[in-house]
Amino acid sequence: MEISQRAQNMPSSPIRKLAKFADDAKRNGIKVYHLNIGQPDIDTPACALEAVRNVDRNILEYSPSQGYKSLRTKLVSYYAEYGIDLSPDEIIITTGGSEAVQFAYMACLNPGDEIIVTDPSYANYMAFAISAGAIVKSVKTRIEDGFKLPSVEEFEKQITPKTKAILICNPNNPTGYLYTKNEMRRIRDIVKKHNLYLFSDEVYREFIYTKAPYISACHLEGIEQNVILIDSVSKRYSECGIRIGALITKNKEVREAVMKFCQARLSPPLIGQIIAEASLGTPQEYMDQVYEEYLERRNFLLNELNKIDGVYSPTPMGAFYTMVKLPVDDAEKFCQWCLTDFQYEGQTVMMAPANGFYTDPDEGKDQVRMAYVLKKEELAKAMVVLRKALEAYNSQK
Amino acid sequence: MEISQRAQNMPSSPIRKLAKFADDAKRNGIKVYHLNIGQPDIDTPACALEAVRNVDRNILEYSPSQGYKSLRTKLVSYYAEYGIDLSPDEIIITTGGSEAVQFAYMACLNPGDEIIVTDPSYANYMAFAISAGAIVKSVKTRIEDGFKLPSVEEFEKQITPKTKAILICNPNNPTGYLYTKNEMRRIRDIVKKHNLYLFSDEVYREFIYTKAPYISACHLEGIEQNVILIDSVSKRYSECGIRIGALITKNKEVREAVMKFCQARLSPPLIGQIIAEASLGTPQEYMDQVYEEYLERRNFLLNELNKIDGVYSPTPMGAFYTMVKLPVDDAEKFCQWCLTDFQYEGQTVMMAPANGFYTDPDEGKDQVRMAYVLKKEELAKAMVVLRKALEAYNSQK
Repeated sequence: MEISQRAQNMPSSPIRKLAKFADDAKRNGIKVYHLNIGQPDIDTPACALEAVRNVDRNILEYSPSQGYKSLRTKLVSYYAEYGIDLSPDEIIITTGGSEAVQFAYMACLNPGDEIIVTDPSYANYMAFAISAGAIVKSVKTRIEDGFKLPSVEEFEKQITPKTKAILICNPNNPTGYLYTKNEMRRIRDIVKKHNLYLFSDEVYREFIYTKAPYISACHLEGIEQNVILIDSVSKRYSECGIRIGALITKNKEVREAVMKFCQARLSPPLIGQIIAEASLGTPQEYMDQVYEEYLERRNFLLNELNKIDGVYSPTPMGAFYTMVKLPVDDAEKFCQWCLTDFQYEGQTVMMAPANGFYTDPDEGKDQVRMAYVLKKEELAKAMVVLRKALEAYNSQK
Repeated sequence: MEISQRAQNMPSSPIRKLAKFADDAKRNGIKVYHLNIGQPDIDTPACALEAVRNVDRNILEYSPSQGYKSLRTKLVSYYAEYGIDLSPDEIIITTGGSEAVQFAYMACLNPGDEIIVTDPSYANYMAFAISAGAIVKSVKTRIEDGFKLPSVEEFEKQITPKTKAILICNPNNPTGYLYTKNEMRRIRDIVKKHNLYLFSDEVYREFIYTKAPYISACHLEGIEQNVILIDSVSKRYSECGIRIGALITKNKEVREAVMKFCQARLSPPLIGQIIAEASLGTPQEYMDQVYEEYLERRNFLLNELNKIDGVYSPTPMGAFYTMVKLPVDDAEKFCQWCLTDFQYEGQTVMMAPANGFYTDPDEGKDQVRMAYVLKKEELAKAMVVLRKALEAYNSQK
């Protein structure tokens, strides 16, 4: 009796390894500033919380495998505001954006097929690829270039007869990068030329801090049948726990294939759908306040980070993450040390070592990902602690 | 650009094909008695509905990937009442029992590995096997034998060097069969002798209508490390929509493997866990009433069915399904005809053709599965309609 090869191949996130050290630190009375996770600290909209309290059903029954039509219809209006023209039938409700990624892979990729991702990227893209037996190839983006899209040539170097798809995340987790119109056109050209699927994860579209336009994969002309949009309400309404996402495509054959996997898992969460539907009525004032809050945090955090000797972070244009180069040899060791061997006035910081986001764990060894999901006053304290930690860490050698 | 082979191989349930005919019938004003689905019509317990209305959180955030410890702790007490001794760490909360099946396969089976199921069985066991690249072998159970467990020899005929697991569902969907103590001992012996995993889906344990004891796979001595229990709160508390299940095993290596898949999908539904936890406090009176209700329906339905000429159904000992042999050549055609070409006083019946539950779609061609999730008065009317439908169908030839 053995566990499967794919389970053995599944990555263990460096963040998870650190979690127990963070728990120990807290048990010892140390205040830990969590810069490591993408769990917003922002309140869920009142209309969403109200919808939970108003659930008026006698039976909490299965919902349709594709999700409630009323939710899908409201999503059509939501996407229309972003210039994305859809019908309710083109939207499949999933159990979080995670399931949308999983089903896109399961429906489109055979074992041994290759998918190209930009490196660094969200670690679970790789995990789901392992589940599907697909192989991840990567094109490198670099912190010194601000993580801009590599050239067409870099992509084409990775394309083989086994290549079936390109996956992008825009705005990007973990880098905060936002693809320009020209970059999106380049992606379209590659997708079209090689007839690939384009999986586009755009769950952070509400969080774009520059005047640059948001170019969705769904805006790209001539590849309408190639695009599979991965989405989620988690981040935009601070409701990660309800597990409601969507897989969206104009490709009917793909939708029919995805629906088979949807039917096998019966239905997406019922109460989550009720909450998501209510959330689509969130007042603009809430969205504006949240946007302003993240913008202010971003500006503050980046300013503070780049003031610290030897620290560098390019300014993220979107999402609520930034990749940070630290003056240390091994960021994973440093992150652990912060939790196990350091405190400053009873405080420390927890960060995500960046190597978990690179396909090659030897890359990004001096980088961490920070999420600005703490209030500015807490970020300020965390930056003082980080500066002290770097001084102490580097003086001990 | 093609869809994956696995998506092409995924079964399309005959029930789904019938769904659109049922919708058409309803649009034409015909009352359809749904004997086809396992969605209980019983009210969810008041304490569960109350828990939804009392959700008092400002942020609907991610829950732990393994599920809330408070829920897992309460489940320990629940299982203790069934003589199953667990610790909270041995319980992993999943998004429905469906995800528990999927993760058990993903963690334990390599592509090409074989799993033995009893035939007929729940169709999605095959669907998830296709997702995992595993191959389903089957041992036949027969309606004329009341679907009792085949002999050890029948199992051993199917065992090859690629066999990794046996999957049972007890009490059984779709047959309602309950394995005897002796049968469970036989399964234990095979599992032990060949060192296999035993995946045991026991979501219907509350619904056993005989005085026979419930023997869980977790009661079997000497294979503690082999057993993976698949569970769900869906059926017992009539809350299928909240998508909360569990994967339970004493095998630490399996749990660690499963947790990697859990971490990739981040967390099970938050509100669902709150509801499930509250449901564990459901008063015994509710459970007793629901039990009595199903028992009465079962007795009534079986009595009525077996009074109809040419109809035969063995008496199910558990769950809320029964397999019914009808005096027709092709039950799928008959089920469709009931929806498209028949009505009796403005009413018709929808049943699940049994071929969707057999690995060989040529088996069970004259059988349907019925779920007794309708009130007795409705079942009575449905039986009148069925009798009339059979008369009309067989007189037209």
